[in-house]
Amino acid sequence: MQKIKFETDYQEGAHPKILERRLATNLEQTSGYGVDVHNERARELIRRAINKPNAEIFFAVGGTQSNTIVIKSILDPCEGVIATSSGHINVHESGAIEATGHKVLTLPHHNGLLDAKDLKKYLTAFYANPTYEHTVQPGMVYVSNSSEYGTVYTKNILKNIKAVCGEYKLPLFVDGARLGTALTSEASDMDIKDLADLCDVFYIGGTKNGALFGEAIVFTAPEKFKLKNLRTLIKQQGGLLAKGRLLGLQFEVLFEDGLYFENARHANKQAMKIKKAFTDSKIPFLFESFTNQQFPILTAEQNKKLSAEFDYELWEPLEDNKMAVRFCTSWATSDENVEKLINAIKNL
Amino acid sequence: MQKIKFETDYQEGAHPKILERRLATNLEQTSGYGVDVHNERARELIRRAINKPNAEIFFAVGGTQSNTIVIKSILDPCEGVIATSSGHINVHESGAIEATGHKVLTLPHHNGLLDAKDLKKYLTAFYANPTYEHTVQPGMVYVSNSSEYGTVYTKNILKNIKAVCGEYKLPLFVDGARLGTALTSEASDMDIKDLADLCDVFYIGGTKNGALFGEAIVFTAPEKFKLKNLRTLIKQQGGLLAKGRLLGLQFEVLFEDGLYFENARHANKQAMKIKKAFTDSKIPFLFESFTNQQFPILTAEQNKKLSAEFDYELWEPLEDNKMAVRFCTSWATSDENVEKLINAIKNL
Amino acid sequence: MQKIKFETDYQEGAHPKILERRLATNLEQTSGYGVDVHNERARELIRRAINKPNAEIFFAVGGTQSNTIVIKSILDPCEGVIATSSGHINVHESGAIEATGHKVLTLPHHNGLLDAKDLKKYLTAFYANPTYEHTVQPGMVYVSNSSEYGTVYTKNILKNIKAVCGEYKLPLFVDGARLGTALTSEASDMDIKDLADLCDVFYIGGTKNGALFGEAIVFTAPEKFKLKNLRTLIKQQGGLLAKGRLLGLQFEVLFEDGLYFENARHANKQAMKIKKAFTDSKIPFLFESFTNQQFPILTAEQNKKLSAEFDYELWEPLEDNKMAVRFCTSWATSDENVEKLINAIKNL
Amino acid sequence: MQKIKFETDYQEGAHPKILERRLATNLEQTSGYGVDVHNERARELIRRAINKPNAEIFFAVGGTQSNTIVIKSILDPCEGVIATSSGHINVHESGAIEATGHKVLTLPHHNGLLDAKDLKKYLTAFYANPTYEHTVQPGMVYVSNSSEYGTVYTKNILKNIKAVCGEYKLPLFVDGARLGTALTSEASDMDIKDLADLCDVFYIGGTKNGALFGEAIVFTAPEKFKLKNLRTLIKQQGGLLAKGRLLGLQFEVLFEDGLYFENARHANKQAMKIKKAFTDSKIPFLFESFTNQQFPILTAEQNKKLSAEFDYELWEPLEDNKMAVRFCTSWATSDENVEKLINAIKNL
Repeated sequence: MQKIKFETDYQEGAHPKILERRLATNLEQTSGYGVDVHNERARELIRRAINKPNAEIFFAVGGTQSNTIVIKSILDPCEGVIATSSGHINVHESGAIEATGHKVLTLPHHNGLLDAKDLKKYLTAFYANPTYEHTVQPGMVYVSNSSEYGTVYTKNILKNIKAVCGEYKLPLFVDGARLGTALTSEASDMDIKDLADLCDVFYIGGTKNGALFGEAIVFTAPEKFKLKNLRTLIKQQGGLLAKGRLLGLQFEVLFEDGLYFENARHANKQAMKIKKAFTDSKIPFLFESFTNQQFPILTAEQNKKLSAEFDYELWEPLEDNKMAVRFCTSWATSDENVEKLINAIKNL
Repeated sequence: MQKIKFETDYQEGAHPKILERRLATNLEQTSGYGVDVHNERARELIRRAINKPNAEIFFAVGGTQSNTIVIKSILDPCEGVIATSSGHINVHESGAIEATGHKVLTLPHHNGLLDAKDLKKYLTAFYANPTYEHTVQPGMVYVSNSSEYGTVYTKNILKNIKAVCGEYKLPLFVDGARLGTALTSEASDMDIKDLADLCDVFYIGGTKNGALFGEAIVFTAPEKFKLKNLRTLIKQQGGLLAKGRLLGLQFEVLFEDGLYFENARHANKQAMKIKKAFTDSKIPFLFESFTNQQFPILTAEQNKKLSAEFDYELWEPLEDNKMAVRFCTSWATSDENVEKLINAIKNL
Repeated sequence: MQKIKFETDYQEGAHPKILERRLATNLEQTSGYGVDVHNERARELIRRAINKPNAEIFFAVGGTQSNTIVIKSILDPCEGVIATSSGHINVHESGAIEATGHKVLTLPHHNGLLDAKDLKKYLTAFYANPTYEHTVQPGMVYVSNSSEYGTVYTKNILKNIKAVCGEYKLPLFVDGARLGTALTSEASDMDIKDLADLCDVFYIGGTKNGALFGEAIVFTAPEKFKLKNLRTLIKQQGGLLAKGRLLGLQFEVLFEDGLYFENARHANKQAMKIKKAFTDSKIPFLFESFTNQQFPILTAEQNKKLSAEFDYELWEPLEDNKMAVRFCTSWATSDENVEKLINAIKNL
Repeated sequence: MQKIKFETDYQEGAHPKILERRLATNLEQTSGYGVDVHNERARELIRRAINKPNAEIFFAVGGTQSNTIVIKSILDPCEGVIATSSGHINVHESGAIEATGHKVLTLPHHNGLLDAKDLKKYLTAFYANPTYEHTVQPGMVYVSNSSEYGTVYTKNILKNIKAVCGEYKLPLFVDGARLGTALTSEASDMDIKDLADLCDVFYIGGTKNGALFGEAIVFTAPEKFKLKNLRTLIKQQGGLLAKGRLLGLQFEVLFEDGLYFENARHANKQAMKIKKAFTDSKIPFLFESFTNQQFPILTAEQNKKLSAEFDYELWEPLEDNKMAVRFCTSWATSDENVEKLINAIKNL
């Protein structure tokens, strides 16, 4: 029998409302490559949600693709992108950024987050180095919200980062593969308007929050960037979907009446229940997360017991045969499965 | 009112059977990135269809992506890919191949097809050139079937190309974005088994033949290639879909009981009706095509009349204000719309 | 015994004046990477020679390197460089431009030269194509003077090209690997000031005109380009010579009192003698050249006879066993060797 | 007045013996691009010096270029090169490796050296990670000898690294920009034969050891690599010098009767005198080096005094206004200048 899966937030299909819309529009005829009414309307809904009537919005199929497109479009040949060592582009994208010719310049992370002080220190030292012209030039800053460890940026942390970016004229890019769970987390004090105000470009992750696939790349201040050829670049990177309306259509559904955040709130709620169960059982965490990724540290025996019934990700082997693992929830995580997991945790 | 569209073969959604399967499996839990039962089964069905039990099969989201992945995986840094000047990778992929560092080495096309004699002549001259080491080395050969002009390769033409490839140890890659309409065309004397025998790698286009999106990349003789890191390469190119089962699932449906070829036959049948209508009206063609793309040459007045009611692609302006245009059919082209078009042609 | 070589214009070492200066300065201590008095002075001499006090000048080791650096620094990711099919970057640089991710967009050549009308026609058609955003965008124009076939641009031809470039806001780049023989040719009506006025960036070839190696890249209107990181880019491309003063020093000698043009005039003078000898013997040419490359067409017997005594490049096999060949002269070609060749031609 | 320079080991020209040979051969006629008797003989001399009659040897102009060529030639698209965080390719080559599409995978350094245990630990963890196919694959190992901090590998350290490389089938590449001073250092127990035995490819640095420029890339076991197109790759990277004999000729002189090691011994001897002077004055070092780079830590006042008379590199600001600096010696460092420096150190 198949185990219950808490491996990832992309193990089910799409939210039923998206499927319904797909069915209803299947035989509509539209032009290809994202030039259609669904894309237009989705862009308009997002512009309204972030309160930026001039934002330029592009849709891509996945996260690695979105990161590559944004970063390749911004950097000059000798520039690199600053990220934490834990950043998705640094560790989990198979070298997609380097494949476009750019180095990822890494700074330490603090529970997965970038610290403005580290950034400032790095940039000060960089330009103080008399041979800096022999090194990769910092060209932009990348952060993920929520981070790869489930943690979130507060308004204050992001403001401080933005201030340093401003001082050095570096665009700030927020990877929002899990933006929904970040902004609806109890640890967050930002909404999507705040976020849009605090960065130059970000993407709104659909894949991990109820869409079949799809991310919305948002340039909040398009006048700062050369976007004339951005659709050509998306094509060059293999991301210009022929039946492009599939992307627009999904974001229409997600942003028509708040489904995007509703999905994320559901995922967070289920995660908080699981978190509480581990905490009640005195099981510690690798990171303190208030979003849909939870990283408990299991003993070998606990791991053996839980894994008999559940699938989850083995994150990192620790000493004494302990194992940090990851449980993920999503819009699709059912109360029933969460109950089963909580019971199993109680019986560890 | 919206005009009836004959612009492309990707203007509608997916075949209803694919939508049904999507619905039925939406809440299944599977691992991400194409490691699931649907991918496994789709691969098995394709292996059976081509009669190659050892073929290695990978799924990608789109055509440009598939071309880039295959070509990047095969070529060494100094090698280029030989294609006709009309080849999709040369003209219509925004420089995706060059973006991976490789030149497209062009030969003339004959109604969109590569001629083995041109290939042989080029290779002979290449190695006879005393300074050939200062130039891009030929590393593989690319052809499209059906071609960008709707024409198809016969077994004999392809055999001759394969023979030259063999002599120079160049892998032969067939871009099958429109493989279905090629193999079911009345101009074709090959089935998919023959095709698989006559090339080293090809892809089976889903996007233009009933899928929402998706192409199946098939290495027919995997032992000739280094495929160990191919999934990593797909990830690097932004093509490893998180909810990867969407790809497998669609090819399951398409190859379970012949839907793939049924879709293509339908598209061709509708195209042949349209072709006959133009021919009956003495309207000439830019290329003689027996597949789902038809390229009639319209006078300015004919163009004006038809475009009032129908959308189609303006292909190439010709002298005397004539215009070569493209009409495309697909699995979704209805008898009703074809009838309307035929009537309009009659009344030109 | 070694044959007399007319193979290339880089088969000898450097002009004696350069060697002397090398010896005289060998134990000077200077900072590395081109930040030294010799580079400074060489830049100043060139600025004066072209009458552009604000020109930005960079030195690189070779021609392929210079082309790559200039083109990579100017193009955006989706842009390509327009060149004739015979352009050095298209045929003889091992795909160096593509290795930086950019396509070479080719137009026909006319005896090795680009025609403004072809350029205009191409650009008009490009932007008239409704799907142009799916193709590589034209980003700059490249021409070689003298061309790969020994021919030269007149002021008028270049003006017309520049006018089209201006209309489409495309920078014009002149590859001057053989700039000296172009500007001192009897077929030229330009001096180096005219050339600098008629392009946005060019390089002055040293390697083929008396230097050991080295090319001077000149941005005539630096305010149009992002040059802040150009030295970093040169480093990235492996072209920032540690003992960078070697480059500056050579251009100091070449531009102090006209040695650069003196060398070229000598090469052309010797070539014209050889040209006359072939003409007198009724031997035809593949191209009519008034510079240091001559392309006579030899019968098999003539070729056999001449090649017993002389080395030259076999350029292109023609029908009837004829062979187009190339004879090159340079600053170092001696009267004695030219006399021997002329005698041999007379005796064919 | 110009200060005495101890900035780098490339601030003077070439060893007089090289200049003499340049003069003597200046008007020889040879074919271009390194196909000549000087290159042939230089290769033969190096093969004899390392006792590898089958070694394949290529010459390039500089170090960044050599690293890029070797690494690009070996890695597949998804592979990266393992180096210490202090490795030249990671910090001082302007992203040249990333510009070819490859990530530099960094491990901690121990006084600039790689530790076999770190390597083993990294590789074990890499393949134990269940999602390793989503990350850059380790494809080769890079070390510098002597290192960027002047330290050297002993036979034992390198053997251990080689053993781990063997276990994981990773080629080992030694950057020998400063190979001469490494192998002649009192801290080294290897000669060049040992080194050649302990790696798969390395380069012999000429630029920093008496040549005008030039590095000899040596594949010790060419049968393990695809070298067929390596010259084409060198051309593509802008490194195939037209007057290629300049490279061969210099290595002829360096390897005819031991000049290469003589130069290095001289540099080390001068450095050891300087080291002793600092030690005698109780001035500490950032790294303990037995080669031609010395890294004393100066107080603000010492720095002020010394810099009035000498140029040296400011390496790294430390606390209490101290500054780590670098003094470099070379084949050209005179006794006189060293004496002046030693006196100045005594008077600090």
